[in-house]
Amino acid sequence: MKDNTPLAWAVRNISELFIGRRGPAAGREMGEAPVVRDAVVLIRDGIIEASGAADVVAIPDEYDVVDAEGGCVVPGLVDCHTHTVFAGSREAEFVQRCEGRSYAQIAESGGGIKMTVKSVRNASVEDLVESALPRLRRMLEAGTTTAEIKSGYGLTPDDEIKMLHAVHRLAKRQPMELIGTYLAAHTVPGEFAGRPNEYLDLVLDPAVLKRITDNGLAEFADVFCERTAFDVDASRRFLTVCREHGLIPRLHADQITQCGASRLAAELGAASADHLECIDDDGIAAMRSAGTVAVLLPACSFFLGVEQAPARRLIDAGLAVALATDLNPGSSLIESMPLVMSIACTQMHMTPTEALIASTANSAAAIRRSDRLGALLPGMQADLLILDVPNHLQWAYHVGRNCVRTVIKRGNIVHPG
Amino acid sequence: MKDNTPLAWAVRNISELFIGRRGPAAGREMGEAPVVRDAVVLIRDGIIEASGAADVVAIPDEYDVVDAEGGCVVPGLVDCHTHTVFAGSREAEFVQRCEGRSYAQIAESGGGIKMTVKSVRNASVEDLVESALPRLRRMLEAGTTTAEIKSGYGLTPDDEIKMLHAVHRLAKRQPMELIGTYLAAHTVPGEFAGRPNEYLDLVLDPAVLKRITDNGLAEFADVFCERTAFDVDASRRFLTVCREHGLIPRLHADQITQCGASRLAAELGAASADHLECIDDDGIAAMRSAGTVAVLLPACSFFLGVEQAPARRLIDAGLAVALATDLNPGSSLIESMPLVMSIACTQMHMTPTEALIASTANSAAAIRRSDRLGALLPGMQADLLILDVPNHLQWAYHVGRNCVRTVIKRGNIVHPG
Repeated sequence: MKDNTPLAWAVRNISELFIGRRGPAAGREMGEAPVVRDAVVLIRDGIIEASGAADVVAIPDEYDVVDAEGGCVVPGLVDCHTHTVFAGSREAEFVQRCEGRSYAQIAESGGGIKMTVKSVRNASVEDLVESALPRLRRMLEAGTTTAEIKSGYGLTPDDEIKMLHAVHRLAKRQPMELIGTYLAAHTVPGEFAGRPNEYLDLVLDPAVLKRITDNGLAEFADVFCERTAFDVDASRRFLTVCREHGLIPRLHADQITQCGASRLAAELGAASADHLECIDDDGIAAMRSAGTVAVLLPACSFFLGVEQAPARRLIDAGLAVALATDLNPGSSLIESMPLVMSIACTQMHMTPTEALIASTANSAAAIRRSDRLGALLPGMQADLLILDVPNHLQWAYHVGRNCVRTVIKRGNIVHPG
Repeated sequence: MKDNTPLAWAVRNISELFIGRRGPAAGREMGEAPVVRDAVVLIRDGIIEASGAADVVAIPDEYDVVDAEGGCVVPGLVDCHTHTVFAGSREAEFVQRCEGRSYAQIAESGGGIKMTVKSVRNASVEDLVESALPRLRRMLEAGTTTAEIKSGYGLTPDDEIKMLHAVHRLAKRQPMELIGTYLAAHTVPGEFAGRPNEYLDLVLDPAVLKRITDNGLAEFADVFCERTAFDVDASRRFLTVCREHGLIPRLHADQITQCGASRLAAELGAASADHLECIDDDGIAAMRSAGTVAVLLPACSFFLGVEQAPARRLIDAGLAVALATDLNPGSSLIESMPLVMSIACTQMHMTPTEALIASTANSAAAIRRSDRLGALLPGMQADLLILDVPNHLQWAYHVGRNCVRTVIKRGNIVHPG
């Protein structure tokens, strides 16, 4: 019952059903996710038809049935911030960091993102697709059913579009749902050093943006907003022009320094502001007013061995916090969303319930998919996982172990496949 | 070619062979492990017959050959400090800690180790075996070919021996090599609160120790040396009596406070002192003089969200540092040695080479197996891993991903199996 999963079927013998919620949970709501014991889920045409307690939701006789064997069932995870399409390996830099050099020092000495840009420029679309496929396979097996993937290692119009074409092809070549983000403003490429606005002229050319939107290659635009990359004015310009072409703004904000990036996110009505290690009270207040999702990337801080974002402070202030892997070869070579949840619990004092809401309902909100992703309620997409543990609390607790037994995407069993 | 792996065979097409070293590496030696490019390994009767560059080591015509497909080959990992045999689950406590309560606060309120002791006392040997088997399977698949397992959740003579019987049975039921450690002095059980020496009378009864040693149930004795558990005098007594019965001393030392435990380890000629988050200069000097291995448990500090042991200071002071998972349900539910290596690299500034030596040659020394484990040199046991990455540096860099393609134990391919 995998590729040929019938149109109408049920999952039964669920010890705990983590229903989640439709739309983002903010602040304390994040810890109050509804669960149902001894539950069933009905699925029809790839959509949740019903979900609830086994003595309330009856399974029609003609439905095929999958036995969860007393496992917990949760919504498929949404990894809302990744750089999964890349080329090359940067383990030498990882070693240098172990030896005590900082990310900034490595970048100054010619390492860092420039190496990946060089590799990606030399790669074909098919090279990028082939190298990303095993990553996506492992992400799926660990429970990610939807992932956003950014460009940002091409840094020429053609190379950025090449990356987005790779995302587009990947979406057709494997079961995970993928969303493209145009991150041409990831860093100022060497050939435009000191001239960020001339570089932006290039990547904001209406003809370039038209190639992206006409082909549905991206839904979001993203910028690395730092004085050393694109300052607030340059970031505002990039995102505003992109928004005029239909791309929804998101930002890499307040990661290394505080320069007002999270306030800019609120000002522009961005779907999310991501990183936020250096967010200040003004940024928090602005994001709360604007309803901007705060995407935290604990795997990145873990990988770099630096301070985590103040998750507790953001939640206590009433923000909707989401989690993502930030998967990339330089600062977060971590593919597993469950490992990210464990890092959030152990290093940031998020609870397992908050971490799971942050990886489902709230990360779905960060990519504007709250209408159909992030919860197991009637009418929503049937993206769900059967775990081999009896409750969702045990998932983050089993650090580094894959507790996912079965992955269901749009009502189809896609793993084990 | 798995269960019926032939007596004489070869692994070829190895991009990098991490030979490792026989005997522990101390201080700077840990970063200088020999590797050979474009290598082969010859295996006969479960022993390394030869290893080295493909143009130096010829593969006899009659040998069967396994192709490493350009992967890296490394010694099987040795997890030298685990509590893999246990019963029950403590996710509620994990949640409490996420919410900000400390390990000590949880223990005071009746949680903590007491819960596991209760579960283990209620379990049969076979219950313990069955629950540990999937853990051992996953550890093996991640690259651990040898593991030490402690008692310490029984805390009566019969229940401690029951745990060691479980280890003994497990050793026969799966491919990993297991070594038992008598940790009756893990904590003072409730029924002996305030009377540690009366409890020690019980578990040091010569008839009890004879049951353990006559049946080969343990090679090591271990004690949790803290003022709140067994102070230095009580620890000395426990380990000295055990040593008289042939059990080699090891210690849980300097984890929560500094009470002289690492100095005691040196005084007793212990095989290792483990944890060491609070080690002082006197302890370091004593351990260096005595040649005691320093076993660090980064997964435990990670899991508890507390300060890591000063790995860099210990290595720079010339100690031999080993790594282990500390797998247990209360303070380190982490089964994967590669994840431990990644934590050591990102959180403790160990290099990938140091982390791998710490998980092979040095962890073999902590369990007194330097004669045959921890290196791929002629005459040593053929415990090796074929990775799907081209060099050992990439292993710790790929955080949380299983890079192990093939596991070979005593010359047999045991995974994929």
